Amino acid sequence: MPSTSSTSADHTVFVPQALVRVRTDSPLVQCLTNSVVAGFTANVLLALGASPAMVDIPEEAGPFARIASGVLVNLGTPHAEQRSAMVEAARAVASAGTPWVLDPVAVGALPVRTALARELLELRPTVIRGNASEIIALAGAGGGGRGVDSSHGVEAAKESARALARTTDCVVAVSGPVDFVTDGARSTRIAHGHALLTRVTGGGCALGAVMAAFAAVDEDPFTATVAAVTAYTVAAELAAKQASGPGSFAVSFLDALAALEESDLAQQAVLS
Amino acid sequence: MPSTSSTSADHTVFVPQALVRVRTDSPLVQCLTNSVVAGFTANVLLALGASPAMVDIPEEAGPFARIASGVLVNLGTPHAEQRSAMVEAARAVASAGTPWVLDPVAVGALPVRTALARELLELRPTVIRGNASEIIALAGAGGGGRGVDSSHGVEAAKESARALARTTDCVVAVSGPVDFVTDGARSTRIAHGHALLTRVTGGGCALGAVMAAFAAVDEDPFTATVAAVTAYTVAAELAAKQASGPGSFAVSFLDALAALEESDLAQQAVLS
Amino acid sequence: MPSTSSTSADHTVFVPQALVRVRTDSPLVQCLTNSVVAGFTANVLLALGASPAMVDIPEEAGPFARIASGVLVNLGTPHAEQRSAMVEAARAVASAGTPWVLDPVAVGALPVRTALARELLELRPTVIRGNASEIIALAGAGGGGRGVDSSHGVEAAKESARALARTTDCVVAVSGPVDFVTDGARSTRIAHGHALLTRVTGGGCALGAVMAAFAAVDEDPFTATVAAVTAYTVAAELAAKQASGPGSFAVSFLDALAALEESDLAQQAVLS
Repeated sequence: MPSTSSTSADHTVFVPQALVRVRTDSPLVQCLTNSVVAGFTANVLLALGASPAMVDIPEEAGPFARIASGVLVNLGTPHAEQRSAMVEAARAVASAGTPWVLDPVAVGALPVRTALARELLELRPTVIRGNASEIIALAGAGGGGRGVDSSHGVEAAKESARALARTTDCVVAVSGPVDFVTDGARSTRIAHGHALLTRVTGGGCALGAVMAAFAAVDEDPFTATVAAVTAYTVAAELAAKQASGPGSFAVSFLDALAALEESDLAQQAVLS
Repeated sequence: MPSTSSTSADHTVFVPQALVRVRTDSPLVQCLTNSVVAGFTANVLLALGASPAMVDIPEEAGPFARIASGVLVNLGTPHAEQRSAMVEAARAVASAGTPWVLDPVAVGALPVRTALARELLELRPTVIRGNASEIIALAGAGGGGRGVDSSHGVEAAKESARALARTTDCVVAVSGPVDFVTDGARSTRIAHGHALLTRVTGGGCALGAVMAAFAAVDEDPFTATVAAVTAYTVAAELAAKQASGPGSFAVSFLDALAALEESDLAQQAVLS
Repeated sequence: MPSTSSTSADHTVFVPQALVRVRTDSPLVQCLTNSVVAGFTANVLLALGASPAMVDIPEEAGPFARIASGVLVNLGTPHAEQRSAMVEAARAVASAGTPWVLDPVAVGALPVRTALARELLELRPTVIRGNASEIIALAGAGGGGRGVDSSHGVEAAKESARALARTTDCVVAVSGPVDFVTDGARSTRIAHGHALLTRVTGGGCALGAVMAAFAAVDEDPFTATVAAVTAYTVAAELAAKQASGPGSFAVSFLDALAALEESDLAQQAVLS
């Protein structure tokens, strides 16, 4: 059995089903994310049919996490109050059993967020999403990327991703031209997407929020993450057809997420 | 006299006149608002012809409020420094007689902002804008909404809105499919708008800033608020005709606000 | 020799060359900027082909500045942590010799940022970008603008700009309908751009980030700044042809920055 194609369920079924569930349930997704991409992230969730809430201050983040359906913790601009709120929210969801996603932006390269990421890892995220350099750094196997971008390819991060998934008992998703998702036992690659997604700030960060929305409606975090990546990157492909550049792509992408049909996912989601 | 249609002035006259005044005077609107929607809010004000300034730190918010023509205080992400700045700004405008708008996002549901909203209420906002759940919570009659969205309909909030308007001597605007505006004595409903406005983050929050702009050019906060809601929601209708989804709607909406003509408001503004 | 046209190099050569270098080198530009425009600024840099990173917290801003190729410090919403981070980053680049841009938003009018701007001036920015009122205030010759907008024309700021450039040994760029760039000895005016750029929040602020990107790939900060202003404002002209208003202009502008060709700059860059 090739390790790159070991999804047990039929993705042509579970991916479109997950999209329908997100739209039907409209999960409340609490985002503690960086100030650069907060607006785009909220718009991505709204376009998909989920319900975003950016509650990220101490004394509110914890109580809110207890009623949220899913939580995103993104370390992009971790100011002091937000760091406290992140730990508070992660503790609340850890005890409540609510799925949450950790996006360790630029971890390894910068000290404050690296220490915070270690602390958050102890609270067992449901999903960890990062680029190759971030996943390698978090697995303790490398020295970080170039700023917020990756200096490693996805292939180089596969073993780190599997090791991280096993030691932390979570799903790990490595973003890149071909995405890689693993829970340590199962793993799959998703070869959709478009380069324009890397020319829009938040193109990666908002995917973390989408993973939280899908994990909120699917008890299996592995299939939820695969569905989130597939829906997101297929929408990017559809959007790119309408776009003249990164500005119009960002607009078309939101329209495409809102217009995405089950048939788009059943037909196009060829996982390799 | 039906309580839902008791506007004394002729809205086919005062609404377009208010739009012209906003464009002519270009009021300086200070926004202390949440980080998710700050960019969109500024773009909405710029599109309308007003002049936004997001001055929201202690020791600057108060001095700036003294020269601003209108102020928005939105409790969406009230970090500690911003909370101090909000109180500072509200005190400054209270003594200067400058109109200001309070948007008590998610009040009732979350402790920090609920306490802050109570403190700000003492400083007598000119206008309070919220969804039904927020207005009911602020009036002391209910327990808050689902995250930042309303779990109540506008109809259910009408009595709370009137009571809140009377006890605080301010205008209260309840946002929803049909908006409701009251100053306790007068009240009106505005049946414009489009569902896509709820799929864009800041679709509600930016309206609070627009109310501050209109209140800056109209001595009667009730007619100013009615004019702001009408101009905003008519622009949303015009924008929806050009839109393929939430992404293109947000773009068209800014274009529509900039292109809005007096005749659009005189012809279409049917208040019920 | 008219003082308004004293560029020694041939701008029809160095401007397109600088654009090519930005795209080839993809300089890592650290932005410590205001929360209103952070997303738009990142998108502008991505569209141009540069690599943005918004690292703006204490203990990370300094270490990151040491690896960045250029740094922007924009005083739009200077919260306490960000102020510390700004000083930390400016000290790091000052010792590393990395180019950095100071955008003293609303300096003179507001006390906290005015004190901070004075402190940052001591650390010798490579480029200072502001509107006429900000440059006049920073040069110690006036009392500030109306909020974040200028109450002075560019012409009125030319002598202040030259004086500021000489005393601080930096390049000063005054934004307006006609931009003025000087290093104290050389000076030039750039008559491109479009009024719609003033109707998009961040239209000015993002230019500061672009200057940092160009200064990262051109050893002469004067020609780098002229090239940045020219590329940015020519793209604005091209975008305006596709736009129906400020919303569609912002989208077209990002597309135009990504599509900008050397020939657009060689043909159109008429400096007066």
